[in-house]
Amino acid sequence: MNDLGPEARSGDGAIERLIDLMAKLPGLGPRSARRAVLTLIRKREKLLAPLAEAMAEVAATARSCIQCGNVSTSDICPICRDPKRDPSVICVVEDVADLWAMERAAVFRGRYHVLGGALSALDGVGPEELRIPKLANRAGEAEVTEVILALNATVDGQTTAHYIADALADRGVRITSLAQGVPIGGELDYLDDGTITAALRARREV
Amino acid sequence: MNDLGPEARSGDGAIERLIDLMAKLPGLGPRSARRAVLTLIRKREKLLAPLAEAMAEVAATARSCIQCGNVSTSDICPICRDPKRDPSVICVVEDVADLWAMERAAVFRGRYHVLGGALSALDGVGPEELRIPKLANRAGEAEVTEVILALNATVDGQTTAHYIADALADRGVRITSLAQGVPIGGELDYLDDGTITAALRARREV
Repeated sequence: MNDLGPEARSGDGAIERLIDLMAKLPGLGPRSARRAVLTLIRKREKLLAPLAEAMAEVAATARSCIQCGNVSTSDICPICRDPKRDPSVICVVEDVADLWAMERAAVFRGRYHVLGGALSALDGVGPEELRIPKLANRAGEAEVTEVILALNATVDGQTTAHYIADALADRGVRITSLAQGVPIGGELDYLDDGTITAALRARREV
Repeated sequence: MNDLGPEARSGDGAIERLIDLMAKLPGLGPRSARRAVLTLIRKREKLLAPLAEAMAEVAATARSCIQCGNVSTSDICPICRDPKRDPSVICVVEDVADLWAMERAAVFRGRYHVLGGALSALDGVGPEELRIPKLANRAGEAEVTEVILALNATVDGQTTAHYIADALADRGVRITSLAQGVPIGGELDYLDDGTITAALRARREV
């Protein structure tokens, strides 16, 4: 299969350029990029033109929320601006994708703090690379009573959680983290040993 | 998993709109659309802005080549314009994607004719819906000596091939079709009966 490189050609410069750019998106390769571009051209009015417009708008306006680090098209993101969100609880996540996942669950009504990654000795990510100093400032504000650490259940995520718990120890706020255990719908037979151990240790009366 | 519908939310209108549009691309769902949009925002200068521009350009200029039906940003596509391509051979394909596949093989040096589909009683696609009259005209031009039918080896594709062969019978051109047989790298054990039958019938002296 000649699916890579310069042979992925339509013969037309502008269309080729679009295919090459689309192929750089995560989840799309040269073949799916070509398919997507053909679909876009077929749905020029309904999909291609609006998509070009939406991309241009986001390209011109996207930035990080100066408060929480969420991506936004305004300096303060809609979540930080929303007066109905509880300002006393800050949920700390590694990435914007994690914030979006929390929002989809639609159960958390406080605000967020996006670190922009996790501490990693291997990748040379220290506390300065993350937004931990900013988090310490926010946690010191009078209205904040709880910081929830919603970091990934990975080595780096948990290292980061411990580091933050230490760093905020003198801020007079409650520091909690997401429960670990059997996921809803999870079957014991398919779970790894670590999850079963965590779930057993955190067992509760029924 | 709440992966569908209005819960796929970043909280930001412009970003949400972009995610919704991206999720309409073939091969992308809501989850991969969100991932793609995060990548786009991270690579704003290098990917998002150029992509917005390339899409706007293609949206403004894409059309079908009036000669062969290939997608193009000019009235006559680069392949039909190319004086080095042999005008005496026309390769008939169902879709633009098939034309691109032929071009990737980089072995055919003639010109194309894109039908825009195949005859299909089930889907109500008759000869008028395809570009068969235009093909008959082209095949009647003095310089054309051969029409290669490179249609899919499906029932509809082969029906279409027979129909075209009949329609062009009086045009005085050679009508050929792609060989059917064992694909390169193909293992007999994994091939369907139809392919093995076709390969056996078309067997050649070695």
